[in-house]
Amino acid sequence: MMEKKKVIFQELLRKHPADIAEVLSQLSDEQATKLLHRLYLRQAAAEPLGEMDPDESAELLSDLDREEAIKILARMDPDDAVDLLEELPQETQKEILSNVDSKEAQVISDLLTYPSDSAGGLMSPEVVALSLDMSVQQAIDVLRQRAEEAETIYFAYAVDDQHHLQGVLSLRDIALAQPETRLSSLVEIDVISVPVEADAEEVALLFDKYNFYALPVIDQQVKLLGIITIDDVIDVMREEATEDIYGMASVPMNESVDTSWFSSLRMRLPWLYVRLATAILAALVVATFEQTIAKVAALAVLMGVIAGQGGSTGMQTITIITRGMALGEMQRHQGHKLLRKEILLGVANGLIIGITLGIITYLWKGQPLLGAVACLAMLFNTVVAGAMGVLIPLGLQALGKDPAIASGVFLTTVTDVLGFAFLFLLAHLFLRVI
Amino acid sequence: MMEKKKVIFQELLRKHPADIAEVLSQLSDEQATKLLHRLYLRQAAAEPLGEMDPDESAELLSDLDREEAIKILARMDPDDAVDLLEELPQETQKEILSNVDSKEAQVISDLLTYPSDSAGGLMSPEVVALSLDMSVQQAIDVLRQRAEEAETIYFAYAVDDQHHLQGVLSLRDIALAQPETRLSSLVEIDVISVPVEADAEEVALLFDKYNFYALPVIDQQVKLLGIITIDDVIDVMREEATEDIYGMASVPMNESVDTSWFSSLRMRLPWLYVRLATAILAALVVATFEQTIAKVAALAVLMGVIAGQGGSTGMQTITIITRGMALGEMQRHQGHKLLRKEILLGVANGLIIGITLGIITYLWKGQPLLGAVACLAMLFNTVVAGAMGVLIPLGLQALGKDPAIASGVFLTTVTDVLGFAFLFLLAHLFLRVI
Repeated sequence: MMEKKKVIFQELLRKHPADIAEVLSQLSDEQATKLLHRLYLRQAAAEPLGEMDPDESAELLSDLDREEAIKILARMDPDDAVDLLEELPQETQKEILSNVDSKEAQVISDLLTYPSDSAGGLMSPEVVALSLDMSVQQAIDVLRQRAEEAETIYFAYAVDDQHHLQGVLSLRDIALAQPETRLSSLVEIDVISVPVEADAEEVALLFDKYNFYALPVIDQQVKLLGIITIDDVIDVMREEATEDIYGMASVPMNESVDTSWFSSLRMRLPWLYVRLATAILAALVVATFEQTIAKVAALAVLMGVIAGQGGSTGMQTITIITRGMALGEMQRHQGHKLLRKEILLGVANGLIIGITLGIITYLWKGQPLLGAVACLAMLFNTVVAGAMGVLIPLGLQALGKDPAIASGVFLTTVTDVLGFAFLFLLAHLFLRVI
Repeated sequence: MMEKKKVIFQELLRKHPADIAEVLSQLSDEQATKLLHRLYLRQAAAEPLGEMDPDESAELLSDLDREEAIKILARMDPDDAVDLLEELPQETQKEILSNVDSKEAQVISDLLTYPSDSAGGLMSPEVVALSLDMSVQQAIDVLRQRAEEAETIYFAYAVDDQHHLQGVLSLRDIALAQPETRLSSLVEIDVISVPVEADAEEVALLFDKYNFYALPVIDQQVKLLGIITIDDVIDVMREEATEDIYGMASVPMNESVDTSWFSSLRMRLPWLYVRLATAILAALVVATFEQTIAKVAALAVLMGVIAGQGGSTGMQTITIITRGMALGEMQRHQGHKLLRKEILLGVANGLIIGITLGIITYLWKGQPLLGAVACLAMLFNTVVAGAMGVLIPLGLQALGKDPAIASGVFLTTVTDVLGFAFLFLLAHLFLRVI
């Protein structure tokens, strides 16, 4: 039995760190800790930990013996170590850092000062800097020395004595050149770089637009601080998309299929209470017209259709606009033009859908006036929905909030409240029910 | 004036093709065609076209003189040319291909046979294949020759005489080795490859998990067909995320902030009619209980709250599950365990929110029974919503449909219909209103 386990462990050691990470996250806490300890003894724990979600790896690491944890952390890539440390309490962070080799600790504490959703939070400081008066042969010697620890050697950056960024050098050009060629004849000086404080989403858009593999990160004095590689950016894109998708359905950001039911309950309940509050707000409008409904119960049948359709048309608009924002397609559009377009669409959709509903209502109840009320209420609500679908995300963005997250809640509140109000007020006017 | 235009054009020529592409897509059709013609005269039209969305670049190219169009297309990367051609009518495709140089045309027609959402549709055939008995110096000579046309030279693949894939060679290892070293001592034979028919989403998940920069594409005989690089995969990820986000809000897949209002109208209307049909289905339930509502109008106030809350809890579940599917996190979960978890959550959420609503109802109307009806209807609906939130996406996936797209419509139909039915049936039972 022990023999068989050993064989399995040997096989695991040969796998890609991402595969080992997958095994670790599927095991129970106790088993995972045991496996991590065995990996540690074979100096194979740091890489898989770097491949895991930081919240998972942080939990795993804190279950280990403190001394082991510190040694593993010191062997991790500094950017992965930082992501992990950020998940731990301040106390533990300090304790661990005070035990790490002082140079390594300095690098990590520097990185910890950058917000995780900024270029600084994404970058690795392990970037290869070369001097322009080097020859290709000298550059290859430096690359050989740095190959192990550097984030990548496919791109290196030319810097002057004060570490100011001067240009980019690709391994492609270096490898294909003659050994005695000077780097100054290979360097591309039109280098695009990102400031360390740039937003992670903007960095992702740059990678997407220009198909970069790596970008240098600089400070305000144009000094080279680090490098961002495309694999870090892919994680940002995935997270961003998850954030936007979760936002639309009011799902808590930290939840996934792996979350336990009790954690899910605690995280989802606040959102459900928000939804309840907005639903009650809309119900208040209905309650005001209880008398009207008692007389014309058909209004109760129609009200859900009209409010729902407003919500649907408005959500279409919000979705297109917030997605346009996320993909960086909004800069070339002006708010008032989009507003005009969506109001126009609201009128057209509202007329077509409204007339359909009006005819159905007339056929059902035989009352032309009730059909007209249904049609007009639908029209008003889709026009408001279209306008709100533009104004809510643009407004939230102007206030510095993420429009993908709260827009939906605001919209449905407006379309429910106004959908009901339009219907009952028109009924009151046309049918003189009160 | 002409002088100024010339200066602007010269400046444009110095920009990154992605920037030129951006300018092209912002101009009017007529201006864009003119600019493309000028770029063509400077042999600078192919790259920007390759950076544009294929539907835009196809439109632009078809406005050009046919002969020019053919010459530009022949200069494009074959994978970009294919994406563009796929947007053109079959007729035009054939006409263009018959005028392209026959070797180039063969490459393009071969690529056209692969579905665009498969590994074959993503790959470039311009991959560097090396023989294992070569020396590093010989390999560098080959790379130098192929550097211009190859998709990338950072990764090359070792193949035998019959072009069977044997391993991967990185420029990193080649560049750092001594010139006389044999490639057989540098090759990594544990190479991960994708079959040409693999789904684009699966390819994206592989890149995401292993942080690859490039992957070789093989046929059933393990022969090397091409290479997929990470920049192509980023586009897949973006499109996938857009698809999922659009699906949630029933937004037509081809719409963006750039779409004209009339195209938007035509594309959105079918979806709105689907929503109208499902809303009318739910309204039929309400219509059945018109008498009940006329007697207890408070039910009309409550019904929207209960149906809406069911929709919200169910959408949370659907969102987490479909996102888990998209991120490849679902394999390690079993359907029945997720179902149990979500039913448990439905019970807990339903009780907490239901009791809240029950108390509010009691305080409002002073009728304890009406409060109990509201509470129970809420509980039943959130339990059904939780269960449906698991069953609908799993069912759609089992049927081979994209769960992110239609799940929401099915769910709200169920939660509306049952939400109303629970409330009215309970009212009938408890309050004996009929």
